Amino acid sequence: MSMVDRGLLLILSGPAGVGKGTVCKALRERMPELVYSVSATTRSPRPGEVEGVNYFFKTKEEFQKMIEQDALLEWAEYVGNFYGTPRQFVEDMLNEGRDVILEIEVQGALQVKQRFPQGTFLFLAPPDLNELENRIVGRGTETQDVIRKRMEVARAEIELMDHYDYVVVNDVIEAACDRIQAIITAEHLKKDRQVHKYRKWLKEVE
Amino acid sequence: MSMVDRGLLLILSGPAGVGKGTVCKALRERMPELVYSVSATTRSPRPGEVEGVNYFFKTKEEFQKMIEQDALLEWAEYVGNFYGTPRQFVEDMLNEGRDVILEIEVQGALQVKQRFPQGTFLFLAPPDLNELENRIVGRGTETQDVIRKRMEVARAEIELMDHYDYVVVNDVIEAACDRIQAIITAEHLKKDRQVHKYRKWLKEVE
Repeated sequence: MSMVDRGLLLILSGPAGVGKGTVCKALRERMPELVYSVSATTRSPRPGEVEGVNYFFKTKEEFQKMIEQDALLEWAEYVGNFYGTPRQFVEDMLNEGRDVILEIEVQGALQVKQRFPQGTFLFLAPPDLNELENRIVGRGTETQDVIRKRMEVARAEIELMDHYDYVVVNDVIEAACDRIQAIITAEHLKKDRQVHKYRKWLKEVE
Repeated sequence: MSMVDRGLLLILSGPAGVGKGTVCKALRERMPELVYSVSATTRSPRPGEVEGVNYFFKTKEEFQKMIEQDALLEWAEYVGNFYGTPRQFVEDMLNEGRDVILEIEVQGALQVKQRFPQGTFLFLAPPDLNELENRIVGRGTETQDVIRKRMEVARAEIELMDHYDYVVVNDVIEAACDRIQAIITAEHLKKDRQVHKYRKWLKEVE
């Protein structure tokens, strides 16, 4: 670690359709210094995809070994291929003092929480509860059964909010980015991240 | 409480001479919605001072009663007069959903911490440890005894940092204000302050 402060791992998550990707893209433009976590996958590279930039491409055997060695902060299978977040890349960037952002759905975020509880967990929330309610109730053509199932999904998602540190409403993309930037600034100013500098200095002058 | 979220109590503190008053003044200009805590005092009003604006003016008997009833978040005696922070004013403002800031020296902040641990405690720190060191060592004319005493004071102040939530370096006033604003934004986005809205909504649509 030497002279630099360790970076923050930010986990940006939230229900499907809330706009995680769009917010991440806007954030990347205004904060080019932020590192985006690179996933590992067993699927084949598509034309133009670069190893270590778009993905770390792995065989199924290599991926299986990473799972066994607890080398992934989270992983999931999707239509026959494995996807996951290699811990090493994240740790390397954090040790260089860089902040890393991981955009991920809620189940993956819960896995990361177990393996990296010191991360900063941001729940991106829908802007308007009334609109969400209208969406759930539908246009009056839905059966009671469909409405009940959608309510269960909404309820489960909101219960998961409890595992997060912050709730960021995605009303206007730039406003959501402002909030995330404020959170990043504040997290860096937390006492536990600052006090060691002063302690170190006191030790030196002792 | 009804519809509004409860406000934040921000405690801005730090060693003598670090610039608490200057930062507070700059913050007041850019955030006019922030409420400044009004102190109670037993000293006489000076010309132009207004009850409830500059101070709550109290007799010594009234002040003593406030101490006994635990109606002060902190108090101290200074050259024969008592000064303190009435809890009621702060609670009233917080219940109206307004953020309240309390500028206070470190001993007072520790008292507030005991009586209002849910406050957000900001330690305003000197900008440059090397400069602080130079100041402590002095211009080479100080005795070892003076240097040792100054070091003890600095050490004690830095140990107190541990009781705070955030450390804000006061290098440039506007930069310190930016940091404090980011902290205020982030604190409002903390999950515990947000989740109840979603829970309430789920209950309504149940």
